[in-house]
Amino acid sequence: MEAFFKLKTPDEVFHIIDGFAPVGEETVSLEDAFGRVLSVDLTAPEDLPDFFKSTMDGYAVKSRNTFGATESLPALLEIAGEVSMGVAGNIVLKSGQAIKIPTGGMLPEGADGVAMIEYCTLLDEKTLEVSRAISPLENTIQPGDDFKKGAVILPRRKRLRPQDLGAMAGLGFSEVPVFRKPRIAILSTGDEMVPISRRPGVGQVRDINRYTLGALCRNMGAVPVYMGICSDHFQPLREMVEKVLSSADAVWISGGSSVGTRDFTLKVFETLPDFELLVHGISISPGKPTIIGRSGVKPVIGLPGHPASALVVAEVFMTSMLRTLSGAVAYGNGLHTIKKAILKRNIPSSGGREDYVRVRLEKDGEHVHAIPIFGKSGLISTLVEADGLVRIDMNTEGLYEGDKIDVMLFSHN
Amino acid sequence: MEAFFKLKTPDEVFHIIDGFAPVGEETVSLEDAFGRVLSVDLTAPEDLPDFFKSTMDGYAVKSRNTFGATESLPALLEIAGEVSMGVAGNIVLKSGQAIKIPTGGMLPEGADGVAMIEYCTLLDEKTLEVSRAISPLENTIQPGDDFKKGAVILPRRKRLRPQDLGAMAGLGFSEVPVFRKPRIAILSTGDEMVPISRRPGVGQVRDINRYTLGALCRNMGAVPVYMGICSDHFQPLREMVEKVLSSADAVWISGGSSVGTRDFTLKVFETLPDFELLVHGISISPGKPTIIGRSGVKPVIGLPGHPASALVVAEVFMTSMLRTLSGAVAYGNGLHTIKKAILKRNIPSSGGREDYVRVRLEKDGEHVHAIPIFGKSGLISTLVEADGLVRIDMNTEGLYEGDKIDVMLFSHN
Repeated sequence: MEAFFKLKTPDEVFHIIDGFAPVGEETVSLEDAFGRVLSVDLTAPEDLPDFFKSTMDGYAVKSRNTFGATESLPALLEIAGEVSMGVAGNIVLKSGQAIKIPTGGMLPEGADGVAMIEYCTLLDEKTLEVSRAISPLENTIQPGDDFKKGAVILPRRKRLRPQDLGAMAGLGFSEVPVFRKPRIAILSTGDEMVPISRRPGVGQVRDINRYTLGALCRNMGAVPVYMGICSDHFQPLREMVEKVLSSADAVWISGGSSVGTRDFTLKVFETLPDFELLVHGISISPGKPTIIGRSGVKPVIGLPGHPASALVVAEVFMTSMLRTLSGAVAYGNGLHTIKKAILKRNIPSSGGREDYVRVRLEKDGEHVHAIPIFGKSGLISTLVEADGLVRIDMNTEGLYEGDKIDVMLFSHN
Repeated sequence: MEAFFKLKTPDEVFHIIDGFAPVGEETVSLEDAFGRVLSVDLTAPEDLPDFFKSTMDGYAVKSRNTFGATESLPALLEIAGEVSMGVAGNIVLKSGQAIKIPTGGMLPEGADGVAMIEYCTLLDEKTLEVSRAISPLENTIQPGDDFKKGAVILPRRKRLRPQDLGAMAGLGFSEVPVFRKPRIAILSTGDEMVPISRRPGVGQVRDINRYTLGALCRNMGAVPVYMGICSDHFQPLREMVEKVLSSADAVWISGGSSVGTRDFTLKVFETLPDFELLVHGISISPGKPTIIGRSGVKPVIGLPGHPASALVVAEVFMTSMLRTLSGAVAYGNGLHTIKKAILKRNIPSSGGREDYVRVRLEKDGEHVHAIPIFGKSGLISTLVEADGLVRIDMNTEGLYEGDKIDVMLFSHN
């Protein structure tokens, strides 16, 4: 007979997941830092930019020399030279003078603004008409406008985007302290499993979870470590898990879809050093038989054997865990991009558990429609067809056609 | 004086970008196929699953033996054996019999349904009570339920997600035909540029675009090929571009932020074999001086020199181009995730061009607020602070506080 699990609610599970810690730190080159998570508050070692520069092609001027200038009464200035890119000028701008300057050029001493070329007319080689008043600092960037020396540029736990790398490049960081990518050991159990390289015999199936779970890890910036297939025997599985935990940061065992083998995964976990069982079943569908424990600080996870159920559980909960292990700010159930949509069919639900229902999105003019994908939940094809999941709260009896709903897009869409 | 460009509208630019073709095809292992784009319609070489199996722990039965069964009047069946995982059973189920079966087990010949263990009571070792009627095919998956032999599993131009890899694994694909990753040569020009490894002299700046543009390429599944910095001289730049185009699929030159050097990038492009100028300026801000051309089938792009402008143009247009070159379905301006938000301040705009304004998002209870980031558009810090962009149409004079707006999230958020 099936044992009675004390099921945890999804909120309790998210809270437990938040209790894990980042797996460690390392230093990578700036080039390899994209998508990585910063492990320190990064401060500016100098002003960016560190010189006073023009943001326009034009003429560097003393702004007060242009005050009151208009098209009908332009300011007349004497051209005293030209600024070259990337070098310090040695001309000092005197009152009544202008110096030609390109975008990005360094303002000459004495200048405090730039007249855009559009408002400038050359009367002769040496004489310039400026047809607009230039305010102090107009068309310039001052030292420290981007970042002042000592300011925090990027906070700890920030996942680095292209522009973040740009700020670091501008300040000369060639190396970046980041959290290590978590190494997740992925192991499939089941006497019916064969690797995809082998033709399954009658009653056998290919190992799907290795690929789905591995890709999900990669997408979240983790490194999957493939352990292969283990038969449903206690001793070899126990040895494999113990061995892999010496090098990996977590282990995910999928399989044990029948009651007997499920208990068997837990029995193996229970032999691990400093083991604590945190979750033995979650009040969701699909994914109820999920196990979450820890051996020391390392999460040990038992996922359902059905590939579709395993992937839904991984999408809902393991993305959060991977985020936590990789040091990024964890948002619990709020990690996924939410798309507002109009439900196109009723979805019944039995209370007392959260249902995660696969939906396909279809655009209809201004509206987005969500079409629930019914059919056997164990089929991987239902996920291939889906764009995301709709969460149906424990305390409702379902959703109705025409309801405005939130669709959690898959993290890898 | 500035030449008068015939500016293209963003829609015209998206249309031009759609005219480029995927860069080629290759075969990768299933393990490396995540995120890649399928180059063929993939069909199922066999049924998935290829045998009749149980989705529950329970007893395989002939459904008609249970018709009418209830808790008060259960069906009595003789237990004729047990199915093991992953092997073909050789017991044939006769009328009046039941055979124990685990989830995923192959149904014995003669059975057409599975009674869940919850509805079964063992009276003795050989006798089973079933307290519910089982419909034909109940709790089973039939051959081909996932995919029928010959059916299209995944269409050409699909970017492969974890579940898509799962479907392929289930059908035994160990290799996958995909489009090649486009190789994008990235080159920065400017006499004021130094590599980040060097301390800039007075008036010099570090090369930021290499890192921002490279990361954006990686995020879109392209391979950046870093060409370094080229001074503002015609001949070395021309030689470098010609050489790199023999191995890269496209070249992006950033720099030339001043009018003179901008023309100079175009002059270099004009010497390339089979060159056609497609875009010479776009009616957007920032990013107006963008150049798009082709040398044969290869795009050659001139991006603004300001890191922030270059990255906005890359985010808005180059993500679309990378998607096209990598064979994925192109959506033009519809590629980005859109977040609905309420604008917190007026944004003025001069008509006749599309403005892309940086915004920060803040959650306020149920609502999401978009706070425009004003300040000098050339500052990279404005992008570091931003979560996305708001597009302001050519034909409006701006947006107002309280407006419900669409925020384009950055592709790499």
